[in-house]
Amino acid sequence: MASPRKQTHGNETREVILAAAERLFAEHGVAAVSNRQVSEAAGQANNFAVGYHFGTKTDLVLAIVRRHAPSIEQRRAAMIAAIKGSSELRDWVSCLVQPTTEHLAALGSPTWYARFIAQVTTDPTLRQLVIDEAIASASMQEIIQGLDRMMPVLPAEVREERADMGRQLIVHMCAERERALQAGTATPRATWEEAAVGLVDALVGLWQAPFTPTK
Amino acid sequence: MASPRKQTHGNETREVILAAAERLFAEHGVAAVSNRQVSEAAGQANNFAVGYHFGTKTDLVLAIVRRHAPSIEQRRAAMIAAIKGSSELRDWVSCLVQPTTEHLAALGSPTWYARFIAQVTTDPTLRQLVIDEAIASASMQEIIQGLDRMMPVLPAEVREERADMGRQLIVHMCAERERALQAGTATPRATWEEAAVGLVDALVGLWQAPFTPTK
Repeated sequence: MASPRKQTHGNETREVILAAAERLFAEHGVAAVSNRQVSEAAGQANNFAVGYHFGTKTDLVLAIVRRHAPSIEQRRAAMIAAIKGSSELRDWVSCLVQPTTEHLAALGSPTWYARFIAQVTTDPTLRQLVIDEAIASASMQEIIQGLDRMMPVLPAEVREERADMGRQLIVHMCAERERALQAGTATPRATWEEAAVGLVDALVGLWQAPFTPTK
Repeated sequence: MASPRKQTHGNETREVILAAAERLFAEHGVAAVSNRQVSEAAGQANNFAVGYHFGTKTDLVLAIVRRHAPSIEQRRAAMIAAIKGSSELRDWVSCLVQPTTEHLAALGSPTWYARFIAQVTTDPTLRQLVIDEAIASASMQEIIQGLDRMMPVLPAEVREERADMGRQLIVHMCAERERALQAGTATPRATWEEAAVGLVDALVGLWQAPFTPTK
């Protein structure tokens, strides 16, 4: 059995590896970065440190996702409780957007999480894994059901498409904003809070848009 | 002066290099791929083939963009001529979406262009370059002015934000669809034509959405 001191060291090492991996994956993409490069960036003399602490690269990606999940999940659950089964589409869209933007705001600058997620979602296997992980959360299930109740007229494929679009907009607008904040370049909105307002406005319009039948 | 035969060989080499670069950049990101790797993938014995034919990596990226630009530009000009200064937002949004989706459909499968553009737009310098290049086209200027005429009430920062969102949605929905087509995984829409209808519907809703003042 590990002594308490050793345990702490192990946790610290894990944290250092997670932070290094998140940054490298955000900058270069998940496929472009080897476990060895992560170990090196985390200052681990042993090139197998990532494997030892996390297993496969997929396990490492999931560990990074799960490092952020509780904070986002907590905000989401609180927001859902606050809107009390609302029949306003805007309320449900806010539950989808704000937990992420508030989490990013709370992390302080620079953050890597938004770009990390943008990179993960370009890998077909990892994307499905991360989406499945997100959808499995009870609060996300409530939001999906809430959105579905608001949009009874949309055919299944349009609903699926707009869910994809909503995810893409949230992921890539946050990633682009995160990148601009770090580079010191211009952003359309001054704060994450205002960026969230812009996203919610736009997504409400997107979800409510009439659809053109194609069949 | 090069003989006609040699000239043809030079053009063929350029084409082979452009195709190899587009694919590598699409798969791995622009920053992750060296000119040397492109030369190798293009089957060039000389590792400096890219430098010799294209100059810097930025020149190479621009050359790939310009390989697709005339086909897209031509479609855009024809669509703008057809809508004759329309006062329907949908017409202008269609001019923004369809030239790209039609170009992708015409290329046949697999294509790399959508993922290439998605990768390029995550690099702050290259993104600006590609956006400047696109905006410089006369037909794109007409669309921007057309959209502006339709949206007189939006404050400048909201207009800028929705232009960003529109670009992100077109770029990333096309990239995700292109990826899914190659991987043989499910897509919400059966054809590029139907995917364009879905994008136009959604973007019209996004642009028309009421905005919440934040100041």
